[in-house]
Amino acid sequence: MVIVLSGFFEYDIIIVGGGAAGLSAAIYSARYGMKTAIIEEKVTGGLSSTSPLIENYPGFKAISGMDLMDKMREHAETAGAKIIEITKIVDITIEKKYRIKCTSENEEQYYCKACILAMGTKHRKLNVLGEEKLAGRGVSYCSTCDGPFFKNKKVAVVGGSNNACLSARYLNENLEAVVNLVHRRRELRGEEFLKEAVKSNPNIKKYWDSVIQEIKGQDSVQSIVIRNVKTNELQEIPVDGVFINIGEIPQNELAKKLGLKLDDEGYILVNRRQETSKDGIYAAGDITGGFLQISVGVGEGATAAVNAFLYIQGGWYSESKI
Amino acid sequence: MVIVLSGFFEYDIIIVGGGAAGLSAAIYSARYGMKTAIIEEKVTGGLSSTSPLIENYPGFKAISGMDLMDKMREHAETAGAKIIEITKIVDITIEKKYRIKCTSENEEQYYCKACILAMGTKHRKLNVLGEEKLAGRGVSYCSTCDGPFFKNKKVAVVGGSNNACLSARYLNENLEAVVNLVHRRRELRGEEFLKEAVKSNPNIKKYWDSVIQEIKGQDSVQSIVIRNVKTNELQEIPVDGVFINIGEIPQNELAKKLGLKLDDEGYILVNRRQETSKDGIYAAGDITGGFLQISVGVGEGATAAVNAFLYIQGGWYSESKI
Repeated sequence: MVIVLSGFFEYDIIIVGGGAAGLSAAIYSARYGMKTAIIEEKVTGGLSSTSPLIENYPGFKAISGMDLMDKMREHAETAGAKIIEITKIVDITIEKKYRIKCTSENEEQYYCKACILAMGTKHRKLNVLGEEKLAGRGVSYCSTCDGPFFKNKKVAVVGGSNNACLSARYLNENLEAVVNLVHRRRELRGEEFLKEAVKSNPNIKKYWDSVIQEIKGQDSVQSIVIRNVKTNELQEIPVDGVFINIGEIPQNELAKKLGLKLDDEGYILVNRRQETSKDGIYAAGDITGGFLQISVGVGEGATAAVNAFLYIQGGWYSESKI
Repeated sequence: MVIVLSGFFEYDIIIVGGGAAGLSAAIYSARYGMKTAIIEEKVTGGLSSTSPLIENYPGFKAISGMDLMDKMREHAETAGAKIIEITKIVDITIEKKYRIKCTSENEEQYYCKACILAMGTKHRKLNVLGEEKLAGRGVSYCSTCDGPFFKNKKVAVVGGSNNACLSARYLNENLEAVVNLVHRRRELRGEEFLKEAVKSNPNIKKYWDSVIQEIKGQDSVQSIVIRNVKTNELQEIPVDGVFINIGEIPQNELAKKLGLKLDDEGYILVNRRQETSKDGIYAAGDITGGFLQISVGVGEGATAAVNAFLYIQGGWYSESKI
């Protein structure tokens, strides 16, 4: 019989996910003297690091996502946090108070007293030709972040939700972009006033019953090819940018396994202290929904860390949470 | 009869207070194309700008408070926000939906459609000799911020609240500082486990019934003189740092005039969208309580701005708020 001993590690606080929220939590946690690890499935930086230019993180007028996330990563390491990358946590179980087990894909066990979940979201993608190649070069998933680069230009907005409607209005009404709204159905979903505002705006051209078949361009987006799903007719529309607003996918697999309360869209429910529905488990950043921004993530990460620290110090947690 | 015409200004969004939360709100609001103004009683920067060194705002491993706040101010101006300084707003009234009047001390009127309150807090001070002169040079009001500079050193902690207890424990247990706790009463206030932890820790020396009479030092703190309020006996204790943890004073005068719901300590109640109890009025940062940190302020400022923008765009706000 062969006994294989796999790894076994102990920390005070483990943070699952190395985007802005996770890195901020790590900075605070390590500065509180907690033995802290970030465990990240890929490499730290999260979705933010895929953004070519970030102009709305206060303090940096313009910085690439990769550079900003490198700074945060270095900041967390300097503070004393251990960063463990390319390690996927596949299960978390609360064995008892102050003993939470995180198990990785290769069956290593990471124990901690409190755990901060910061797994973020994935952009829902169209999965069409040109989308991946031109991501960050005209293809964007966030009009708040990238809209200002398309002032007075021609853009497409894909989707029919509140978010797509807001995106279309913002790009046209605030940034004076010419907007082509591409929606696979005939009716918009979402709140009445938003739908009406989009429908009655003549500067938002609507392509109903239509999907994008291809995004064309060499170094940057030049046009989209759309297909009418009823007639199969194809049409090419010249645009400088494509905003894909068909939703985010919260990375909530671990939260589900833990039995945490989630909202209707699958985001982890938290209170203002970033406590989840289970003692000792905190959540921060995009995985908790709300306004998916780096600035919000760092604030929530900091709040999660201080409350995890207080919990470990002496059991300070809210009796009625969410 | 002489008619004096005082100024009259119109904005989409007015932010009262120019600390980290206000500046972040301004960056987002202006980038959304909203005509935005920050109105600040003193000069922008808030309490953060008084900190000699900030090591816990993600992205900057070490920066002076003034430098960081200058960057945020410039960031907000570049985004298009107007910064109005040395102008004290003394009254805010909601005339009707989308028409909020902010009146300054010199009777100028600033109208806006939505208003973000970010007035922050003031540190409660001891008002003793040496306190002001040595602020930032050994005298601190925030152990989370400045504690790590006093690793293995001798410090005093002043106060008897939860916060003072946490501060004392953190400085001793996590940073191995020798702690002298100075409290004007014989009993600590606050949660039981915290009081017990402080009382039973022999490395936290307690001076009950005692107040600080003077903080001594030339370029930095060298000692404190304490007085026993029962015996009037004086005693000089050599220390490198003094952490004054006797509370924060929320700057809530305008919130009270507006009739906003406040918590027991006088902080403005908000939900996760930073909505207050009145439509069109948002609040962000230290004035809302919670974890008083720059990182949290910038997140809340961003969230307040996006929700104020959505409200102006089409009335999107929560029916039941707080």
